[in-house]
Amino acid sequence: MLEKLKEEVLEANLALHRYGLVVFTWGNVSGRDRDTDKLVIKPSGVSYDEMKAEDMVVVDMDGKVAEGSLRPSSDTPTHVELYRRFPGIGGVAHTHSPWAVAWAQAGADLPCMGTTHADHFNGTVPCTRPLRRAEVEADYEQNTGTVIAEAFAELDPLQMPAVLVAQHGPFTWGSDAMDAVINSVVLEETAKMGAWTRQINAAAGSIPQYLLDKHFFRKHGSEAYYGQEAKRRS
Amino acid sequence: MLEKLKEEVLEANLALHRYGLVVFTWGNVSGRDRDTDKLVIKPSGVSYDEMKAEDMVVVDMDGKVAEGSLRPSSDTPTHVELYRRFPGIGGVAHTHSPWAVAWAQAGADLPCMGTTHADHFNGTVPCTRPLRRAEVEADYEQNTGTVIAEAFAELDPLQMPAVLVAQHGPFTWGSDAMDAVINSVVLEETAKMGAWTRQINAAAGSIPQYLLDKHFFRKHGSEAYYGQEAKRRS
Amino acid sequence: MLEKLKEEVLEANLALHRYGLVVFTWGNVSGRDRDTDKLVIKPSGVSYDEMKAEDMVVVDMDGKVAEGSLRPSSDTPTHVELYRRFPGIGGVAHTHSPWAVAWAQAGADLPCMGTTHADHFNGTVPCTRPLRRAEVEADYEQNTGTVIAEAFAELDPLQMPAVLVAQHGPFTWGSDAMDAVINSVVLEETAKMGAWTRQINAAAGSIPQYLLDKHFFRKHGSEAYYGQEAKRRS
Amino acid sequence: MLEKLKEEVLEANLALHRYGLVVFTWGNVSGRDRDTDKLVIKPSGVSYDEMKAEDMVVVDMDGKVAEGSLRPSSDTPTHVELYRRFPGIGGVAHTHSPWAVAWAQAGADLPCMGTTHADHFNGTVPCTRPLRRAEVEADYEQNTGTVIAEAFAELDPLQMPAVLVAQHGPFTWGSDAMDAVINSVVLEETAKMGAWTRQINAAAGSIPQYLLDKHFFRKHGSEAYYGQEAKRRS
Repeated sequence: MLEKLKEEVLEANLALHRYGLVVFTWGNVSGRDRDTDKLVIKPSGVSYDEMKAEDMVVVDMDGKVAEGSLRPSSDTPTHVELYRRFPGIGGVAHTHSPWAVAWAQAGADLPCMGTTHADHFNGTVPCTRPLRRAEVEADYEQNTGTVIAEAFAELDPLQMPAVLVAQHGPFTWGSDAMDAVINSVVLEETAKMGAWTRQINAAAGSIPQYLLDKHFFRKHGSEAYYGQEAKRRS
Repeated sequence: MLEKLKEEVLEANLALHRYGLVVFTWGNVSGRDRDTDKLVIKPSGVSYDEMKAEDMVVVDMDGKVAEGSLRPSSDTPTHVELYRRFPGIGGVAHTHSPWAVAWAQAGADLPCMGTTHADHFNGTVPCTRPLRRAEVEADYEQNTGTVIAEAFAELDPLQMPAVLVAQHGPFTWGSDAMDAVINSVVLEETAKMGAWTRQINAAAGSIPQYLLDKHFFRKHGSEAYYGQEAKRRS
Repeated sequence: MLEKLKEEVLEANLALHRYGLVVFTWGNVSGRDRDTDKLVIKPSGVSYDEMKAEDMVVVDMDGKVAEGSLRPSSDTPTHVELYRRFPGIGGVAHTHSPWAVAWAQAGADLPCMGTTHADHFNGTVPCTRPLRRAEVEADYEQNTGTVIAEAFAELDPLQMPAVLVAQHGPFTWGSDAMDAVINSVVLEETAKMGAWTRQINAAAGSIPQYLLDKHFFRKHGSEAYYGQEAKRRS
Repeated sequence: MLEKLKEEVLEANLALHRYGLVVFTWGNVSGRDRDTDKLVIKPSGVSYDEMKAEDMVVVDMDGKVAEGSLRPSSDTPTHVELYRRFPGIGGVAHTHSPWAVAWAQAGADLPCMGTTHADHFNGTVPCTRPLRRAEVEADYEQNTGTVIAEAFAELDPLQMPAVLVAQHGPFTWGSDAMDAVINSVVLEETAKMGAWTRQINAAAGSIPQYLLDKHFFRKHGSEAYYGQEAKRRS
């Protein structure tokens, strides 16, 4: 069932490791199949060295295991919630990459301080509000998805494929599993650059809207002129 | 004598190097054998490139060499003291990994600023008090174990498998030698994240108790639901 | 056409990656052929793994493609502008290397704080003024070259082969494509050292002119005595 | 002439690269032959990839080339001056490793903030005074050695095998060329730890003298009990 997607999801999980975003098993990536409306996700707590495509777990949109002998990632309900809330996305990635975690632990939005950020994210990457006691004690992982969705009430998740969950760390998404991973790499890089920028100039803030628009839309949307084909993401 | 444990302890010492936690010979790991109540530890000042399982030194719970032609790590009395004080542990690791050292040199406890930390350590990682002159001048290495135990007067070493020795650096422990090393990796990562969090937000502090409980106990104890088996550590 | 230069430009682009200056396709290098007054540049958005010499694009000094089936880097008009303004240069490199980006995003000139910097750059590396709205909205990439040239009104680009474009990142140049890349490496290293110096001593500033002169001119110009041949750049 | 020493000096120069202390050719190591009172040093500006033992240059204690077809490192007069001033040493290393450079550019002594430092350096690593104009303009490299010696008026170079040259960077020395390199590695690591310690606690200072003595003398001198042989350095 969904063997090709399992391969893609395995590749994307291994890419997390290759890009240096995860220590041990501290990350998980999923991909969605539109035809069956099921998702494929990494099993919980299995080391990257041992993972095989057949270990990937198929889960339905109620978060129930549809196929697979291993337990899915404990963050599965967050992934499910994101697919439900953001129907346009095809992959989700979660890491504990350290600079993104630092902004999340700081409870701070990541402003768009330069063109590297603007090339990929259309504005400030939001940090969610902290979850409340009741939200943590029951349905914690699903509620993590809920507070993310709340932070996106006025944002387009296709133009802002990343979030910082306060006190926790980043989630990113994209057109498929690997695209979600690429956005995790970009988020870590821009989170690092943002912290270093503030180290040099504590007053550094967002770039002007016209520069943000220029960079974001030269790579995304119908007017894009970056890359070899219009609409191609970096 | 204890050939299997020697292999495990060698592997754990090499893992210190592989995880980038040590420069030269600046680290040591030991494992305890419950049947004979002896410990196996790295020899002093031998390079990781040359170490073999047969070089590992067997020491009894009075710190005397029971087998081995090489001198044991000069930190052996600290390891012995920790096994005596914390009967539930099976492995001890000591490194000079730089972020953990920085917190230790700063004389600062490492607060639980986020879920990465909460997944592994049940609360603030304590920093010991500095040793006094008399404690340094006689039985220094044993007294290092003593001040660690003092810092744990009201802490459960099985839920807090790490400490920062003031002016010095980290010790960690676990169910066996490799588990102790894993906790050294986690401590370095969370020490780094904590410093970076404070760099972004100097007022960042501990997460709420309910979020700490949620993360710690979803991975540890009878209610754990992370990983493929209950009670499995990450 | 210009097959040898294409090989050099490919090598220089791959060197960006090897030196750890770029993530994904976030960089581009070009080289100039003096006989034909054409430049060879990396294609846009092609991954470093797949790039071949024959993919390099030949562009004339009006920025028009003279040979090649792929679209040239979207930053091509900036490269063209730099070759026009700085007739002595033979290669240009652009990266988003993180420390140089941090200074650029901070909007700060990089002072010459020590001899590492003085060995390569004759003084403060300038940060441009931000581009104005009109400069961004029309001919953005060419105007990036214009504001760089403006910052060099009183500087010799052969003695200062680097610039920080405000809100964006670094451009460097040199005698050929690889020399431009070497200057990108040096800029990243000195940008890092400068930030770390300020972290230790917030008041640290430029070294005296006589020390700058000593270091710069022992490696450059007719009195150079560093290396195996006079006038050889490091 | 001195073929064995040339091999050792080559190995030590390559080790600078392997330990990640140098970029391009930004470092040099020499070794001294006591019988002939000559030193062997890296040639100037030759890349580490291409260097062979036979390229090493033999220089006498007046700084004149005694053998070798290549020009010796431009820092040779500093090495010569150090061997003259510190008769007990057998090797000298100079790098631009970034954390040590940052302290040097900051013009700051590196205090002994913890046991990692105390294991290797007996106290604060001194930063020299800046060279004066006249000292830079004539015999600059020799005068660099002179200001180092001045900083050691009351220090034992065998117990403090490292210095930070203000506005420039580190020099280290040791019993032979490789020992000097090891001290460069240690200096970079402790310089990094010191900066990170101050980042966490801006008031962090030196450890007490009794802890410094304990750590330094458990590894050095007649009472040493670290390692497998008395008097063995780390």
